[in-house]
Amino acid sequence: MTIKVGIADTTFAMVDMASVAIKTLNNMTDKIKIIRYTVPGMKDLPVACKKLIEEEGCEITMALGMPGKMDKDKVCAHEASQGLMMAQLMTNKHIIEVFVHEDEAKDGKELDWLAKRRAEEHAENVYYMLFNQKYLQKRAGQGLRQGFEDVGSALK
Amino acid sequence: MTIKVGIADTTFAMVDMASVAIKTLNNMTDKIKIIRYTVPGMKDLPVACKKLIEEEGCEITMALGMPGKMDKDKVCAHEASQGLMMAQLMTNKHIIEVFVHEDEAKDGKELDWLAKRRAEEHAENVYYMLFNQKYLQKRAGQGLRQGFEDVGSALK
Amino acid sequence: MTIKVGIADTTFAMVDMASVAIKTLNNMTDKIKIIRYTVPGMKDLPVACKKLIEEEGCEITMALGMPGKMDKDKVCAHEASQGLMMAQLMTNKHIIEVFVHEDEAKDGKELDWLAKRRAEEHAENVYYMLFNQKYLQKRAGQGLRQGFEDVGSALK
Amino acid sequence: MTIKVGIADTTFAMVDMASVAIKTLNNMTDKIKIIRYTVPGMKDLPVACKKLIEEEGCEITMALGMPGKMDKDKVCAHEASQGLMMAQLMTNKHIIEVFVHEDEAKDGKELDWLAKRRAEEHAENVYYMLFNQKYLQKRAGQGLRQGFEDVGSALK
Amino acid sequence: MTIKVGIADTTFAMVDMASVAIKTLNNMTDKIKIIRYTVPGMKDLPVACKKLIEEEGCEITMALGMPGKMDKDKVCAHEASQGLMMAQLMTNKHIIEVFVHEDEAKDGKELDWLAKRRAEEHAENVYYMLFNQKYLQKRAGQGLRQGFEDVGSALK
Repeated sequence: MTIKVGIADTTFAMVDMASVAIKTLNNMTDKIKIIRYTVPGMKDLPVACKKLIEEEGCEITMALGMPGKMDKDKVCAHEASQGLMMAQLMTNKHIIEVFVHEDEAKDGKELDWLAKRRAEEHAENVYYMLFNQKYLQKRAGQGLRQGFEDVGSALK
Repeated sequence: MTIKVGIADTTFAMVDMASVAIKTLNNMTDKIKIIRYTVPGMKDLPVACKKLIEEEGCEITMALGMPGKMDKDKVCAHEASQGLMMAQLMTNKHIIEVFVHEDEAKDGKELDWLAKRRAEEHAENVYYMLFNQKYLQKRAGQGLRQGFEDVGSALK
Repeated sequence: MTIKVGIADTTFAMVDMASVAIKTLNNMTDKIKIIRYTVPGMKDLPVACKKLIEEEGCEITMALGMPGKMDKDKVCAHEASQGLMMAQLMTNKHIIEVFVHEDEAKDGKELDWLAKRRAEEHAENVYYMLFNQKYLQKRAGQGLRQGFEDVGSALK
Repeated sequence: MTIKVGIADTTFAMVDMASVAIKTLNNMTDKIKIIRYTVPGMKDLPVACKKLIEEEGCEITMALGMPGKMDKDKVCAHEASQGLMMAQLMTNKHIIEVFVHEDEAKDGKELDWLAKRRAEEHAENVYYMLFNQKYLQKRAGQGLRQGFEDVGSALK
Repeated sequence: MTIKVGIADTTFAMVDMASVAIKTLNNMTDKIKIIRYTVPGMKDLPVACKKLIEEEGCEITMALGMPGKMDKDKVCAHEASQGLMMAQLMTNKHIIEVFVHEDEAKDGKELDWLAKRRAEEHAENVYYMLFNQKYLQKRAGQGLRQGFEDVGSALK
């Protein structure tokens, strides 16, 4: 029986992260069915994810967004994150937030690389959460990061 | 069968965005019925939208507001946004937030243009969300904006 | 049949706004019955309003508060506003927030005037929300303010 | 029939405010039964209060906490306050928040005095909320404070 | 009959706090059964804890996380804390938040020490909350801290 995985993304983002996440997941397993749902902006993601969970039956969902550089954008990202948090608590399902802030990268090229790499590594996390929780437990407290390099453990 | 679309707006805003949104939607389709609900301020919008959804049967709602320039106004906008987020999660219906900050424009004339253009482009989004989700998916990750120009993709 | 209107206020505020709101409403209509509930501070207002709605049957409620000047007070006001937002969403009833920040006025005399004028104008809004929503709709987007002067429309 | 009053406090605080609140309440009335619940920190107070209300049957609850001086502590206090707000809205019962910020006082001696005085005055508020709401209404808008001196009305 | 205790931790953290918490609890009592659940990041903790409570039957849960140094990380920690607060209120169960901010320590070695010590002391709190609430009550208002030294009472 296949498990449904939701992928919610936006037209606001400057990189198509969803395609990378979908490809990564499909390369790792054929036990899932992916349902994609594109909305205009970041603040439309929480209810989109909740609908993927409650109306489409997704077991886990990824929320892919790209906050802009302005203060206003940071507030939007915060509101979207609070909504994703609440959506998880209302459904008892994980929503993996994959937000890439425009100002994390020094230029468009790095932004494209970062967004795709982070989407890929979080898609791997989704796989482990569904099929191999022991793998995550073995890596607990090891300073793992998605996108840029891992920082490692405090005593490294 | 017509689909009900809610439009909530305020007497606080300095531009009548609702009329533009209503005109845009009516020009795009005759399969919807629009229900308008005007309240005093931005913070009255969340429950107004929830009432449009739950008491009037709206499938999707637009929340049109215009935060002022002061710090106090920014906090109000944040609270209103949190309320709109929560209203969506409680109803599993989208509420498209169309907020135009007074200080986004350099003068009254630009503010009027910006508010109307953003309302128009978000009304188009409402149309696509209801009738053509594939259109949005094809434009995922393309850096679309409502009001000012699109920023385009990171690799443009 | 009379409609019940709730008025929640505080001993913390430096002006008795409730009496003004009650007088304004009673002058406009005899179709309402007002229930007043005084609590110590601003953060006691949300549950007070929810009790007025759910235990006393109020159709709409006014929450009258006066945040102090300190940073701490601003945070309290934000928390109270979030609570009022949530109370509305849990009950599908409007709560009109009438907060007057102590530092909006240059001295005690202006503060007294501002608080009473804002309470009066918001009481009028309550009347229109209950009995004449068309009046509000006709004034949508006109830059109305409560207390200080209206700012008018962007193209004025 | 006795009314149950909950008192939640912390081992984090530097003053035993609960004993003062309990003594004050017991001196004012013998119609209540107090249930005390001590938790480690401020952020444990909201669910503690909710349990006092829902599992112990308390009609009203006091939440006694003492945020530290650091930015991190201010954020904790904000989160705890938001939780107390939500707990009230979920139960339709008042929770009187008695927070004393460590940096409100100039030294340990004043902090001890302030915390005890504020706990005492808020315990009096609890009494009036339970048994004499008219007393609070008569003092509406009079600029009352708990701990430091009342500021009085704007026109004083 | 054993009581189930949940331990939720992350691969993001730079120290394995969960092992310390588990060891501490097992040394104090054999009346509990610990269920560990490792997720990628801090913002995955709230729903993880809620699942431990509602799906695994945990009576109390520890949420172990380590916010990074950047502003963005502080916002994440705030969102995670709000989620943990809400999860507690939705379940009426305590979740003991054990967050160690990377910038609380001067270097990796101190960070490792601090994280382990705080996890240990909070595990002790979990024990007292489950089996000896009187012990906590006796220590109310004594300025206890987890990790660094206790600050003591205001009048010390």
